[in-house]
Amino acid sequence: MDGYMGKILCVDLTAGELRNEPVNEEYVRDYVGGSGLAVRYLWDLVGPDTDPLGPDNPLLFFTGPLTGTGGPSVGRFTVCARSPRTGLWGESNCGGFWGPELRFAGYDGLLITGQASKPVYLWVQDGRVELRDASHLWGQTDTYATQTAIREELGQPRAQVMAIGSAGERMIPLANIITGHGRAAGRTGMGAVMGSKNLKAITVRGTGKLPLADPERYRELRRRINRELKEHPRSIGQRMAGSAAGAEFFDMFGSLTARYFTRGQFPAVGQVSGAAMAETILTGISACHGCVIACGRRVAVTEGPYAGSEIDGPEYETICGFGPQLLIDDLAAITHLGHLCDCCGLDTISTSGTIAFAFYLFDQGIVGPQDTGGLKLAWGDAEAAARLIELLVQQDGFGALLAQGSLALGRYFGVEELAVQVNGQEVAYHDPRAFSSMALVYATSPRGACHNQSDYYMVEFGQTDDELGIPLLDKRQEEGKAAHVAVHQDWRSVCNSLVLCIFAAVPVSDVVALFNAATGREWDIAETLRAGRRIWNLKRAFNCRLGLTRANERLPRLLLQPLADGPTEGYVPDLDVMLREYYAVRGWDPETGKPTRETLAGLGLGFAAGEFT
Amino acid sequence: MDGYMGKILCVDLTAGELRNEPVNEEYVRDYVGGSGLAVRYLWDLVGPDTDPLGPDNPLLFFTGPLTGTGGPSVGRFTVCARSPRTGLWGESNCGGFWGPELRFAGYDGLLITGQASKPVYLWVQDGRVELRDASHLWGQTDTYATQTAIREELGQPRAQVMAIGSAGERMIPLANIITGHGRAAGRTGMGAVMGSKNLKAITVRGTGKLPLADPERYRELRRRINRELKEHPRSIGQRMAGSAAGAEFFDMFGSLTARYFTRGQFPAVGQVSGAAMAETILTGISACHGCVIACGRRVAVTEGPYAGSEIDGPEYETICGFGPQLLIDDLAAITHLGHLCDCCGLDTISTSGTIAFAFYLFDQGIVGPQDTGGLKLAWGDAEAAARLIELLVQQDGFGALLAQGSLALGRYFGVEELAVQVNGQEVAYHDPRAFSSMALVYATSPRGACHNQSDYYMVEFGQTDDELGIPLLDKRQEEGKAAHVAVHQDWRSVCNSLVLCIFAAVPVSDVVALFNAATGREWDIAETLRAGRRIWNLKRAFNCRLGLTRANERLPRLLLQPLADGPTEGYVPDLDVMLREYYAVRGWDPETGKPTRETLAGLGLGFAAGEFT
Repeated sequence: MDGYMGKILCVDLTAGELRNEPVNEEYVRDYVGGSGLAVRYLWDLVGPDTDPLGPDNPLLFFTGPLTGTGGPSVGRFTVCARSPRTGLWGESNCGGFWGPELRFAGYDGLLITGQASKPVYLWVQDGRVELRDASHLWGQTDTYATQTAIREELGQPRAQVMAIGSAGERMIPLANIITGHGRAAGRTGMGAVMGSKNLKAITVRGTGKLPLADPERYRELRRRINRELKEHPRSIGQRMAGSAAGAEFFDMFGSLTARYFTRGQFPAVGQVSGAAMAETILTGISACHGCVIACGRRVAVTEGPYAGSEIDGPEYETICGFGPQLLIDDLAAITHLGHLCDCCGLDTISTSGTIAFAFYLFDQGIVGPQDTGGLKLAWGDAEAAARLIELLVQQDGFGALLAQGSLALGRYFGVEELAVQVNGQEVAYHDPRAFSSMALVYATSPRGACHNQSDYYMVEFGQTDDELGIPLLDKRQEEGKAAHVAVHQDWRSVCNSLVLCIFAAVPVSDVVALFNAATGREWDIAETLRAGRRIWNLKRAFNCRLGLTRANERLPRLLLQPLADGPTEGYVPDLDVMLREYYAVRGWDPETGKPTRETLAGLGLGFAAGEFT
Repeated sequence: MDGYMGKILCVDLTAGELRNEPVNEEYVRDYVGGSGLAVRYLWDLVGPDTDPLGPDNPLLFFTGPLTGTGGPSVGRFTVCARSPRTGLWGESNCGGFWGPELRFAGYDGLLITGQASKPVYLWVQDGRVELRDASHLWGQTDTYATQTAIREELGQPRAQVMAIGSAGERMIPLANIITGHGRAAGRTGMGAVMGSKNLKAITVRGTGKLPLADPERYRELRRRINRELKEHPRSIGQRMAGSAAGAEFFDMFGSLTARYFTRGQFPAVGQVSGAAMAETILTGISACHGCVIACGRRVAVTEGPYAGSEIDGPEYETICGFGPQLLIDDLAAITHLGHLCDCCGLDTISTSGTIAFAFYLFDQGIVGPQDTGGLKLAWGDAEAAARLIELLVQQDGFGALLAQGSLALGRYFGVEELAVQVNGQEVAYHDPRAFSSMALVYATSPRGACHNQSDYYMVEFGQTDDELGIPLLDKRQEEGKAAHVAVHQDWRSVCNSLVLCIFAAVPVSDVVALFNAATGREWDIAETLRAGRRIWNLKRAFNCRLGLTRANERLPRLLLQPLADGPTEGYVPDLDVMLREYYAVRGWDPETGKPTRETLAGLGLGFAAGEFT
């Protein structure tokens, strides 16, 4: 057995009961940790009748075997539940210091069920646990002020707080959970699930040590790998220019999206990129626990309408969503819009996607001033975008429509097919017309359109991987790509279980070596990938049981319209070709997309087979 | 013996004699090819009395054992002579298709001596050689038109032409030699040496095959290494954005220089970078022989005062020299200035450095309208810069001063110490206040301030090398860096002998494997580096014999003034600390900087020891 994952705290908010439970050893053995472990737990706890915003939807926080060990960019943890956005598998992982602190406090995970009768927050300190009243915070404090207020009232300046904002309190499906310096568990509406439980925050503080099977070997590996990671050109770029370091390059490929996915390039990208930020408003950088990359941005706008004090700066997705997608080329305005979202706890991808969709519908004449309460939505108008965020959080008039996301907005106006989303979640800003793989990635992600279950756009950009056997194929190639995408998804499933940041350019063999040194296993790359495949397939089975079918796997119409110019001119990926190959590679039924009994049995998932076939 | 380097063509222009000579086998054994082989040849042929612009200065064109083999970015060759700029070792290497074509025509090198009585060009076709009249071209055709005219009059559309422009004809020391799509043997004034010989061009055409010791092994290596190189992120960046791909990043480090080295950042870098070019005026890309990177740019400006047809686009150094250094933020204007230089055959680094120095002196009130013929030199004025290029080529009035370069210009106005040059050659645009190593690199380069004899700024930027044992040290660290710089110089000496482009991100062991497969040797990395060290030391001995002393090795005053803001704020490198270590590492006398007898003897350079000590 592995001793590395010890115990979880089970919290029944309805009953106000807190109890410790050892982590299921068998589950750890096969599902590693993080979102892998979470899907195995949730398989037992969630069914078609589970209401995502009801008390029976369990909210799981899981760290992984590497979380908090000081290894390369492994300060992360994952939050999982049935998603109120997709109705399917919900998962979001997050950096900062909260995950490590939870482990230092003696817990590897939290399983939260029920619903508190009044707002509460959870306080975990070195094995002591407590539910505390949060009525004075509910509706009163944004995600930053909540962190400060809780630290102050506990007299615990070093406690780590994970909190929802007003969006989560109001169970807006776009809501995220925020910790530390603007770190977010952003996607699939985990903030709304937390809000539905009347849980404002989870605060942790610990001083314990983490178990490592071979501490000496681990330290030795960690030292070398962190040094190499620190010196890696990609890390240096991200340290200098943040996650938007590649913005100019993505734009050159036509992968950076603009004007709600209808333009292939954004000529002003040089004014809003990570480099532009570094040269204008950047005041400092920040890192998650133990991370040598330090991609976090601190910025201050000193003049103009958005002047203010130092705040967290925007990530690539936030920049693209509130910049090029709205034709806004003012970095100060973009920063302001991103900060508004962080304060009230809104996922910036989903929120900007929904708002850009509203602008697009306005441009097309489908939405008019009579719908928006008189507000004109003209491309490039940052003030109008800011107003929409406010209306959205208040669920006021047009804002109540926006609060349900793009798909609901499109349905309301009878143009559901124009919403750029997959399974209810907005598409991230990596255009599949630039990199054909992303069509398959978005279609088959277990959590709706997602760029993190496989960031294959980085492979197409040049980050191939010999150890995974992933070569550089033509960016428009369709045949022969699915097998590589599948391997990449398997690998990312492992990363999301350890929990390793996908920004960390660490060789696969080094990650496996760290895992072995931490856990005492002797896995090789093949065995590790097999665990990833097991996890991927169980998420698939989870979704199939909840009703996912082949028909869910399609791209929105706007992404299937070729652009008239720019690098992607005239091209749209043929998803059917890739999907056919993909099902074959995955061992999924070609008609239904369901994993076959043989596939499941071969991965030790026989228990799942009877549930949905 | 190595059979890979066969014969050279010896051309005595005074006598009009042409004869073949086998390459000296002993020299090949120890000096590989390219500039390594050239320094061994020139050691025998050049002494303190050799006039750089006199008939007795031999002009050597050498390919290397990999030139033209289709290996990774190995389409290059080198041009060497005593430099009219520095009075010391002259060397410039160049891409395009000329070097491979020379080998296909049966020659591995050209040794050109004497002076023709009237303008001529050399025509080499599959072993047949001929000197032809060039009177109709001299003073008539720019470097592009010369290529076209010669191809047409020979009826040889596929012939490769290496030509000087009006700058070379006039023996302006800033003159380069141009071939193909704007490829230049740019530095140390090799174009002036060629002009002094009344040699307008060298045209080559061949259909022969190159000897490879183990063709099958070579092809196998080549296939894999080219594939990996093509997929390397650095290659992809350069393919997309050219050599200016890193401009924004260099600016963030404060390594990109601005306003004649007096400003640490250029906020408009996003308007003039490689990414900006790709998004505005780029119309196509171009590659040297067999190169999978394809960093060459084709551009067309379609509106405004610089609108015109498609031309070759500017490199990083050209952009920096005519952009930030002059506070010009108009990419069309920068492109125009670079193109003016290419047409008349002027090195863009030296020319832009000299012109920016004139602007600086004007700004300081040291030069006034009375000196410039009434021309005002205001920062950012591209028209004034264009006018200076014209005056320079015509050696007209103020232009005659400019034509001799920065050092002469400074001397004329009594401010020699303000010229940013080392040993008479202008400093390239990688500020040593950003990367301390560059102070040592500029000071110790055998050809005056040079960023290619070691591009150590790329190491400081993050491109470390495990195989060479080169780690990432703090960019301001001074102690403990010299040994790594020396190894890097040794390695680049090998690259410049093969001749491998320094843009090619190919692992050292792969380069050595290619070299062995091409030549039948069995060298390891250590033996290969030893050859590089031998070459480096012979260039040093060459320079010592010509009068180089410890006093030559210093940085210009402006680079020793800390900047008041930006990333390099307050820092200047301590060259003395690094130089002291460097001499010790090199085995050079700490007082004089001359290689000791022991050092020379240990490298098989005993023959050189008596000549200058």
